[in-house]
Amino acid sequence: MTESKAVYIPPCKHPRIVIIGAGFAGIHLAKALKNKPFQIVLIDKNNFHQFQPLLYQVATSGLEPDSIVFPIRKIFRNYKHFVFRMTDVLSINSKNKNITTDIGIINYDHLVLASGSTNNFYGLKDVESNSIGLKTIQESLDIRSNILQNIEKANQSDDDATRRLHTSIVIIGAGPAGVETAGAFAEFKKFIYPKDYPELRNFPLQIHVIEAGKRVLSAMSEKSSKDSLNDLEKMQVHVHLDTAIKSYDGKTVELSSGETILSSNLIWTAGVKGQFPEGIDAKNITPSNRIEVDLFNKVKGHDSIFAIGDVAAMQTEDYPRGHPMVAPTAIQQGQHLAKNLQLEEANWKPFNYLDKGSLATIGKRKAVADFGKLHFRGKFAWFIWSTVHLISISGFKNKLRVGLNWVNNYVSYDKGNRLIIRKYKPKS
Amino acid sequence: MTESKAVYIPPCKHPRIVIIGAGFAGIHLAKALKNKPFQIVLIDKNNFHQFQPLLYQVATSGLEPDSIVFPIRKIFRNYKHFVFRMTDVLSINSKNKNITTDIGIINYDHLVLASGSTNNFYGLKDVESNSIGLKTIQESLDIRSNILQNIEKANQSDDDATRRLHTSIVIIGAGPAGVETAGAFAEFKKFIYPKDYPELRNFPLQIHVIEAGKRVLSAMSEKSSKDSLNDLEKMQVHVHLDTAIKSYDGKTVELSSGETILSSNLIWTAGVKGQFPEGIDAKNITPSNRIEVDLFNKVKGHDSIFAIGDVAAMQTEDYPRGHPMVAPTAIQQGQHLAKNLQLEEANWKPFNYLDKGSLATIGKRKAVADFGKLHFRGKFAWFIWSTVHLISISGFKNKLRVGLNWVNNYVSYDKGNRLIIRKYKPKS
Repeated sequence: MTESKAVYIPPCKHPRIVIIGAGFAGIHLAKALKNKPFQIVLIDKNNFHQFQPLLYQVATSGLEPDSIVFPIRKIFRNYKHFVFRMTDVLSINSKNKNITTDIGIINYDHLVLASGSTNNFYGLKDVESNSIGLKTIQESLDIRSNILQNIEKANQSDDDATRRLHTSIVIIGAGPAGVETAGAFAEFKKFIYPKDYPELRNFPLQIHVIEAGKRVLSAMSEKSSKDSLNDLEKMQVHVHLDTAIKSYDGKTVELSSGETILSSNLIWTAGVKGQFPEGIDAKNITPSNRIEVDLFNKVKGHDSIFAIGDVAAMQTEDYPRGHPMVAPTAIQQGQHLAKNLQLEEANWKPFNYLDKGSLATIGKRKAVADFGKLHFRGKFAWFIWSTVHLISISGFKNKLRVGLNWVNNYVSYDKGNRLIIRKYKPKS
Repeated sequence: MTESKAVYIPPCKHPRIVIIGAGFAGIHLAKALKNKPFQIVLIDKNNFHQFQPLLYQVATSGLEPDSIVFPIRKIFRNYKHFVFRMTDVLSINSKNKNITTDIGIINYDHLVLASGSTNNFYGLKDVESNSIGLKTIQESLDIRSNILQNIEKANQSDDDATRRLHTSIVIIGAGPAGVETAGAFAEFKKFIYPKDYPELRNFPLQIHVIEAGKRVLSAMSEKSSKDSLNDLEKMQVHVHLDTAIKSYDGKTVELSSGETILSSNLIWTAGVKGQFPEGIDAKNITPSNRIEVDLFNKVKGHDSIFAIGDVAAMQTEDYPRGHPMVAPTAIQQGQHLAKNLQLEEANWKPFNYLDKGSLATIGKRKAVADFGKLHFRGKFAWFIWSTVHLISISGFKNKLRVGLNWVNNYVSYDKGNRLIIRKYKPKS
């Protein structure tokens, strides 16, 4: 229901910054503006911030959802002139400087789009209808339910084809999300599956990763690609490089190689695109649906509208197609914009991305890390990966609790969260 | 979809015991029959056992769902000739000694109904349509989402009536579930609400408990009733004794006293009734929909069918209306039946309920406990309550982890799980 009346926001003497999206970009912008002379109106359709880098652990029964999502109101407790509204944003009216939401209209002095990205299926409608993406906590839980339900179906059947159908997992895309998901399922296959499903002893889980490019983790170094491919293959993951998905009807995955795979579990991690409400000038939108911004994250052709994080495409010499759509970009752009907004526009400083390196984990004590020209793998890389994630998460929650919980969960091989709490109903 | 073909169950030389329901009764029966000369087929519609006594903590954002539900397959790992099937049971055909499920027919030698209980609305259709019960983990999560969504609605409004509507919680029933839920919300009101919702400072949460009887916790001692009523009132819970609900349209609660309360949050804990598939002789079903059993938990009028736990009504001199529908009854009947099933029928021993006492917690460091004629309250009772629940839960999970997690969660006043992961859509 769209209402045209104004959403109630307490009056405030300071100029109002409306931030759409409580992902890494929006959260870090709002944090950096704590108690500054602005009224901050943060909007999200959920009442929590989700820690996206660990969604795959929820999907693979390794962590409970509540340990990687954090109540927004708790993060911003005791902030002055800060307001949170849980609603969907429908459109932007830059002429009137307001946005229309599910619950009414909200005026802004500055608008910041931090609305992130969503799955990009590149027009493959049947794949979109029959697969599950890995961009939200709800999708992660759907993946968890779907696979556990399907293994139960395999377990209830004495038909070989049915058993094979339901015990194959196909992951499209070998970026960090695809590789980490495949590795976690490989551990599920090794440590949980044989004990939980002794009736399926002749039908081990089959895990496939389909990658259109020539290597896994193509954004990382050649060495990292090679090492992680090695690790995956040692863990019995079938990696199909140089191979694209052509179609999927919920049962048969058709590949560009002509090969087909029977599977009722298709996970899409092969592409993302920016997402934002309507109202942005079409000529400033890139092919991957990101919004062109200048070096100050200001949306081209619009006054007082900014975009940060995944949704922003800032073309620079080093990043002619925009910065990588990853958490560090979002965090740095949020923090940088907060600084500029406190200055006269004439004194604004251009954004400079500091690439702190790349990390991906393939499994316990197996990871790859690139820092400039340095490359690490194995236990040391995994230690860095764990530490970085633990520090990032503990910013949101009780450190002791998350630390214990997370380390215990992760260090043990027992994926204790293999629960079908809400049954998944296929979309088509 | 009902299929008339047989469900695949691996062949086994032992007689087959089919157990319907993986609650306390079914789980403890199956555990007590570990590796005995029976094929155990355990059936549940979920793939987990839920620890019902703590559902209210999930509903009130105090514990995450995954810490009180446990994968069934993990509990029965390494059991010989044990089979789990996740499905709904539709009917019992005692003549052919089989049951019909969502996935087909399953034959039995012995059938044990451990299917528990569900909400009893006593024919109040409008209350049923507009309230949420507290019998399943899904309902607990619905309560959590519904209340958090409604507080957001109150927070978005500048209309006093709307704010009052969404910030009132009405709990029907003052048994243990109702009292414990009210106490937990009272803590939410005191420790979370003022910090999370500063805009609602003039609209404190209103918590009402409606009880048709003359006292709260009527199954416990007079002293416990009095002490817990005192505690609740000190925590600003409005307890309406001797008052029944007449109607509820999703907004207005009409009471037998003539009073009305505006609330969009109605929680039903006022009654339960047995639940089981069709096929049991109607003359053996009590008014509260429990199945009459003899002293050996055998269903009257049926051969080879047993009922244990909430669904069983065993009328004895001490319990003329059947045993209390609580976890200890279910556990003891499950364990007792396991012993009898291993003996010739002539040697079966009648069931004797050992009443170990009653406990209820009203809040942190506030509880009441009755052991025979002994009555405890306050910190000591709370210590007993915590210990009993911790020991019971740790039977299912890694003790260290649950211990830390649970104690930390419970001892801190920060209900960190105030997350709307799946939005609740009212039923009507």
